[in-house]
Amino acid sequence: MMGIRKIWAAALVLGTAVQGFAQQHPNIMLTKANIAAVRQGVAKYPLLRSSFNEVKQQADRAIAKGIDVPVPKDGAGGYTHEQHKQNYQSMNACGIAYQVTGDKKYAAFVKDMLLKYAAQYESWPQHPKKKSNQIPGKIFWQCLNDFVWQVYTIQAYDLVHDAIPAGDRATIEQHLFMPILHYFTNECKETFDLIHNHGTWCLSAVGMTGYVINKPDYVQMALKGSAKDGKTGFLAQLDQLFSPDGYYTEGPYYQRYAMLPFVIFAKTIQQNQPQLQIFKYHNSILSKAIDASLQLTYTNGAFFPVNDAMKDKTFQSEELVYGVDIAYADIKSQADLLDVAKQQKRVMVSDAGLRVAKDIAAGKAKPFQYRSAWLSDGNKGDEGGLGILRSGPNTDQQCILLKAASQGMGHGHFDRLNLLYYDNGGEIFSDYGSARFLNIESKFGGDYLPENKTWAKQTVAHNTLVADETSHYGGELKNAEKYHPELLKFAASEQLQVISAEEDHAYDGIKMQRTSILFKVPGLDKDLLIDVVRGLSGKDHQYDLPFWYQGHITDQSFKTNVVTNNLKALGKKDGYQHLWLNSQSNLHNGDDHITILNNLRFYTIHIAADSAMQVKLVTLGANDPNMDLRTEEKAFILSKPKAANQTFVTVTETHGRTDPTGETTTGAASNVSDLKVLKDDETQTIFAFRVKQKAYKLTINYTNKNNFIQIN
Amino acid sequence: MMGIRKIWAAALVLGTAVQGFAQQHPNIMLTKANIAAVRQGVAKYPLLRSSFNEVKQQADRAIAKGIDVPVPKDGAGGYTHEQHKQNYQSMNACGIAYQVTGDKKYAAFVKDMLLKYAAQYESWPQHPKKKSNQIPGKIFWQCLNDFVWQVYTIQAYDLVHDAIPAGDRATIEQHLFMPILHYFTNECKETFDLIHNHGTWCLSAVGMTGYVINKPDYVQMALKGSAKDGKTGFLAQLDQLFSPDGYYTEGPYYQRYAMLPFVIFAKTIQQNQPQLQIFKYHNSILSKAIDASLQLTYTNGAFFPVNDAMKDKTFQSEELVYGVDIAYADIKSQADLLDVAKQQKRVMVSDAGLRVAKDIAAGKAKPFQYRSAWLSDGNKGDEGGLGILRSGPNTDQQCILLKAASQGMGHGHFDRLNLLYYDNGGEIFSDYGSARFLNIESKFGGDYLPENKTWAKQTVAHNTLVADETSHYGGELKNAEKYHPELLKFAASEQLQVISAEEDHAYDGIKMQRTSILFKVPGLDKDLLIDVVRGLSGKDHQYDLPFWYQGHITDQSFKTNVVTNNLKALGKKDGYQHLWLNSQSNLHNGDDHITILNNLRFYTIHIAADSAMQVKLVTLGANDPNMDLRTEEKAFILSKPKAANQTFVTVTETHGRTDPTGETTTGAASNVSDLKVLKDDETQTIFAFRVKQKAYKLTINYTNKNNFIQIN
Repeated sequence: MMGIRKIWAAALVLGTAVQGFAQQHPNIMLTKANIAAVRQGVAKYPLLRSSFNEVKQQADRAIAKGIDVPVPKDGAGGYTHEQHKQNYQSMNACGIAYQVTGDKKYAAFVKDMLLKYAAQYESWPQHPKKKSNQIPGKIFWQCLNDFVWQVYTIQAYDLVHDAIPAGDRATIEQHLFMPILHYFTNECKETFDLIHNHGTWCLSAVGMTGYVINKPDYVQMALKGSAKDGKTGFLAQLDQLFSPDGYYTEGPYYQRYAMLPFVIFAKTIQQNQPQLQIFKYHNSILSKAIDASLQLTYTNGAFFPVNDAMKDKTFQSEELVYGVDIAYADIKSQADLLDVAKQQKRVMVSDAGLRVAKDIAAGKAKPFQYRSAWLSDGNKGDEGGLGILRSGPNTDQQCILLKAASQGMGHGHFDRLNLLYYDNGGEIFSDYGSARFLNIESKFGGDYLPENKTWAKQTVAHNTLVADETSHYGGELKNAEKYHPELLKFAASEQLQVISAEEDHAYDGIKMQRTSILFKVPGLDKDLLIDVVRGLSGKDHQYDLPFWYQGHITDQSFKTNVVTNNLKALGKKDGYQHLWLNSQSNLHNGDDHITILNNLRFYTIHIAADSAMQVKLVTLGANDPNMDLRTEEKAFILSKPKAANQTFVTVTETHGRTDPTGETTTGAASNVSDLKVLKDDETQTIFAFRVKQKAYKLTINYTNKNNFIQIN
Repeated sequence: MMGIRKIWAAALVLGTAVQGFAQQHPNIMLTKANIAAVRQGVAKYPLLRSSFNEVKQQADRAIAKGIDVPVPKDGAGGYTHEQHKQNYQSMNACGIAYQVTGDKKYAAFVKDMLLKYAAQYESWPQHPKKKSNQIPGKIFWQCLNDFVWQVYTIQAYDLVHDAIPAGDRATIEQHLFMPILHYFTNECKETFDLIHNHGTWCLSAVGMTGYVINKPDYVQMALKGSAKDGKTGFLAQLDQLFSPDGYYTEGPYYQRYAMLPFVIFAKTIQQNQPQLQIFKYHNSILSKAIDASLQLTYTNGAFFPVNDAMKDKTFQSEELVYGVDIAYADIKSQADLLDVAKQQKRVMVSDAGLRVAKDIAAGKAKPFQYRSAWLSDGNKGDEGGLGILRSGPNTDQQCILLKAASQGMGHGHFDRLNLLYYDNGGEIFSDYGSARFLNIESKFGGDYLPENKTWAKQTVAHNTLVADETSHYGGELKNAEKYHPELLKFAASEQLQVISAEEDHAYDGIKMQRTSILFKVPGLDKDLLIDVVRGLSGKDHQYDLPFWYQGHITDQSFKTNVVTNNLKALGKKDGYQHLWLNSQSNLHNGDDHITILNNLRFYTIHIAADSAMQVKLVTLGANDPNMDLRTEEKAFILSKPKAANQTFVTVTETHGRTDPTGETTTGAASNVSDLKVLKDDETQTIFAFRVKQKAYKLTINYTNKNNFIQIN
């Protein structure tokens, strides 16, 4: 890749940019050369047609409502905030509608609105409702919102540029865009130079504006930082914000959000300076990041809810529509991306969207290629990562995610070695996500709820080892940011897939290890999920291993002791205060199990229980005075009250089905039996079980990567 | 309809049946004359093709597994039970596969299996595992299962009849079917003559067998009862088991089940004696019953879960596939039935299925015509009924159900004037259904759970008035069967739809009235749901009105007092023992409200609160030692601790949306305000509210049907 870097060095040193760009409009998502083709495509290809119809309806609604550019006054959710947000969306819709229909009323709407902004912008002070510790915008209370506004607005301007008289263009550029560029690179300089997704939005707005209104100097700053020395700026961000596998450290939910300015600024660079080959920069990092975003979803399109995450977010979100269309049209036309575009049910009305819609109409789509993968974290790829194992077709896929990544900054949860299990189109062992009702004003202003900290971030809210009813790293961000788990093994063969990782610093003096396996056994329809979790310490601890599950327990091997009245919270802090303790049982010294029925299918978790092990059944909702928590969440917690070393071995069989239409049930009985730990020491765990009477013995060799798992 | 009755009288008196039938085979669902057309149809029409492919796969699996006719031994769920059940399904699949493919291996399979049965049947005693108070079968532990077996098996025999050598046919008829006819009409005579759905299965088996093997005497008995006097038998059942509107008193779930033998025996009669016009009998009661079954679903296909009901049952169940295909092909070809067939995703591989699949392929389907309706209960239509109000297209329909029917026999719940509300494709104010894990052996053998009685049937499990924390009719079936609610008013105009009913006997000395309204208000996207519930008594009572809801409360006007630890059961009995009391609040003396977010939409329930009214927030799950209950169920209970008369007025606005993809929320604030009761006495309730500041005053005149609701 030195080749690409050299091109960049040459381009920047020799001042390609400084000489200005061949100016034609539009030239970002829709380009002049392709307008005729896009117009024909709207008539011909169903997905482009329906996507355009939506945009046009939005444009028509905007024109019907008329222009409203109020003096900025309100914070998020308030009238002026929502109106300015609406305005950039309206302008963008009208810009596209103008290019596709040729109807000048749409261009006039954008022009008139921009003139209104131009007439006022310079007179506006910084936003009166500024948040503490945040640089305010002029249009919105946070400068971040101003950046987003400009990223969209400059596209709208580009789309209608040629339909605006030169005099009006001069007014708009002099009295709106130049002051904005100045504000973003001066008052917001700190953000502009930040290696962080707020910085990406800021410099993308500046760089895109620089290209569109031909200000090469601002393009230079966007690419190389305000000092133009390359220490910050877009290229530095591409170098630093993603891992070599394209993973963004905050997690999938924020990765999705961070993607948009990267993709759209890159596309703008590509259009204006194709010789720079921006999509190939840093080992094609943007392509990897888009791919990673998609691999970080289950087959229903939902992002793995790692760290702060709204669980209903899927790859249908706009960021990924941009990402997929551009990846397909500008980077690599992989037929399986068309499958995602079909599920997104729309394309950008753009050159890229045209290609996607056309190829879908031609029947070229293939099922998206989900794969088992280790996605490293850290910009050198050496700070842990996420392990994903998948088995089966997209229509009915088993998938596990092992979270062995670094903390992920302020939105990170304290859940090292957390395990998620998906099957049959949904969650089986699940994660709470974040405690938040996004945009629901009555719920804490739509912001993160207090329970995000007291519950959602705490370790017991996740499917991982808890020592002494306290959270990893004491729930302290600073401590947690110092360390990351280590990958012990990742391997994915047809018969056996394994991901194993270790975390030594979450608790003083405790080494945590987790090894999760998908194992294909002859005679079973679905892979077994084998999971071995260890806590190793010189001292005694209480070890808890929660499994948050979806479904209803229909069978268990042990006697439950269900609390029938006077239900009590399990603990006092670190999330335990939010748990109702419904039942507590001692396990036999042998093969115990719990069977869960979820979405017409059975999941039997076999537990290699040793003496003095307990199962606690809990539901969520204690100490929740404002009813902020989802009380339908349930877990079983495997618990060892006192031990220096503890190994939890479970084998989860996915089996059978109930058919409510035919009123039949088949395969309700598990085929696994006799799960037993045979040996467990510093370097090895050996355990055995039977499937339909055939014996299996597995050995985990923690210190031998070349022979990590042995099966006898 | 005397005409039809006269035809019947003539036919039976003159002994048309006794003379025997023109014997040709097959002649029930598939008929000889249509085989060629069905074969072509399988090649041509996608729905018939996919339906046949499924049947053929089933047949091929059966042949691959081989024939197994074990000596009956096990009860439900056990090996011999499941095997014999499988056998009739396999024979039926092979019978169809033979007719469509012409491949004799399928016919041979049926013949061989029937010969195995014929070789043993007479030697089998009554089933060893007979249930107490139940007549046993010979093949299964309950005779009901034997009836079902024969209904399917005689169809299989009819399908392969012509491919079985005459000698084998004689063996099968002499040693299997004749003994079965004898057993059903002698040992099972009591059931045979029962006016009940078990009786329907019994006589349908007998009648169908009589037609197929040409035993007119048995057909006569099936039609007119064992004494052939018409006091029992199929015609008496048609006269008595359905209300004039086609409603079956046990409720939609059992109506669905009861339909199948009616429909298939009627079809058999139609094929053999078309001159009898069975589908027109008793004012075309079968047609009405099929229509009622469909009207008793919400737009997602789910049956209203009134009385004992598995909630995942939809019109995709086999009974309704038979019903819809036959209704379309043999009764009346309404284009909207094709919409249901499309959603069922299959047709019977039959003459009827051919017509349905063909017309769907021709694009004739129209959206199913859901309508607002009063479906009377009782065979004269004078024992209350179910009121259904609907508004909006099938894609997003508001629907309410007011249960004002009679008890519905042993599967009835004690929930007079229960109200259900559906919107946006799902439940908003919901019903628990029955407490049962059907066919899940580990949950009480798959039978009704003890909590079906202690919880699901009790009044507080439903959205209706509870006095003094006790259930209607003391939870006693005998008392409850004596009375039924009275309809006060049903009317459905475009702007206002109303259903009102009264129940005077659920509690001694309390008159209960409920008036539920869908009201279209200019300026609102969705109808308001207005609900007025009254308890009128000469003495003081505690009045509770639960609303079981789906979703999460995001806002309320009153201060909650959430129990954060030591959660307690609300009561001791009648279902209250299963409720956790999460919060209890006094309401203001004014317009209070609760807002629920469900499936991205808001529901704000405005409450006309008077002094001393309370709201209790409850969740389900107390006193449930076996974890049988769904603990995610939640309710708010409007409660008046002490009053002789109490009127609860609520106005529920359906509004706004959240968009997790675009991360936007609109219309989160309710437009309704100032709800107030102005007057309330024996004959009138007058109340007022504002919508976007426009004032509305509604008067309910309980005793004036002609001017029941006045709006000012």
